[in-house]
Amino acid sequence: MARMIEATKHPYGPSVGRLVDRLAALPGIGRKTAERLAQHLLGCDEDDALGLSDAIRDVRQSVHHCQRCFNLTEGDLCDICRDSRRDQHVVCVVEQAKDLLSLEATGIFGGLYHVLGGRIAPLSGVGPDDLTISQLVTRVRKEGVTEIVMGTNPTLEGDGTALYISNLLANDNVRITRLARGIASGSVLEFANREMLADALRGRQDF
Amino acid sequence: MARMIEATKHPYGPSVGRLVDRLAALPGIGRKTAERLAQHLLGCDEDDALGLSDAIRDVRQSVHHCQRCFNLTEGDLCDICRDSRRDQHVVCVVEQAKDLLSLEATGIFGGLYHVLGGRIAPLSGVGPDDLTISQLVTRVRKEGVTEIVMGTNPTLEGDGTALYISNLLANDNVRITRLARGIASGSVLEFANREMLADALRGRQDF
Repeated sequence: MARMIEATKHPYGPSVGRLVDRLAALPGIGRKTAERLAQHLLGCDEDDALGLSDAIRDVRQSVHHCQRCFNLTEGDLCDICRDSRRDQHVVCVVEQAKDLLSLEATGIFGGLYHVLGGRIAPLSGVGPDDLTISQLVTRVRKEGVTEIVMGTNPTLEGDGTALYISNLLANDNVRITRLARGIASGSVLEFANREMLADALRGRQDF
Repeated sequence: MARMIEATKHPYGPSVGRLVDRLAALPGIGRKTAERLAQHLLGCDEDDALGLSDAIRDVRQSVHHCQRCFNLTEGDLCDICRDSRRDQHVVCVVEQAKDLLSLEATGIFGGLYHVLGGRIAPLSGVGPDDLTISQLVTRVRKEGVTEIVMGTNPTLEGDGTALYISNLLANDNVRITRLARGIASGSVLEFANREMLADALRGRQDF
């Protein structure tokens, strides 16, 4: 992402201009919202403003990757890896830590995870070595993993990454599955696209 | 505003929970957006995250009230008070510095401002002494102000504050006006409320 060097001019002075620029660089925050947030941060309790400043600094200092699965955590191992009740032989592979949170929120999956840190994207210059793929292969072989659930995104790059990994593990004695695809629960067929309907037909299940 | 002492539990650890809490306390930011922003701040460049943290700290350190009009500024006097081309004898009184920005954005007003820092609100325990009213009276008498434009909000409390100030200045030789009220430009009569239409009728102007 391009860094803005020169702060936008602001009637209150350059430091407010810089703050508005920084806030407007956050995802989903436009300049008008950024201006409103800056006004709030100028007017609110000193403790609240500095508390937010410190909280941002703190997460960057305290949070790092789990040594085993590369989820985010404040300890050496994340809560999931530390939980001995979880099935240690089933590993769900996801692109980002936030994908893990979404899957975990379903409460359905009782195994462990492996966070790749992205997907193979040649056009953006992201190759297999930029991800935690070799660490995944090591885990599979060392930890006696019996099943890998590919939880990469259902996109060209996500599918390509899953395919790349499954090729690497082709000679290992590990079952490789992927998340089911089809029509989204609660949606209507009329608005489903061709790809979704094709997936739903191919993967049709006994009633 | 109530301060949260115990951070909300977060799978990544308490520091992320604290950050989400802080972000969710910002105006217009719900918990879902706060979670998304926290994810972004965890994943973005270190420089961008710490840059935002520093920018918040900086504005609280650099920005303070203009010694003359109580607008926000980084210097002793704000840009508007320093601008000798502006009419030094007409002062527009507003509740908040952000009201000043809105009026200034019209480019119509060529005088100075006075920021009260709120409005008289007995139910919230805000009295005249909590605002910069005495400083306004001093300015009027010392600087030879000829006109005060009441730019307080058209609410019960805003009107009450304007009335209080105009009573204080009743014996001073200063013209006191207020922003025109009526139907909002671009709106339709059908959706204007009774108050707005009454204002529009009372303040009707020659065509």
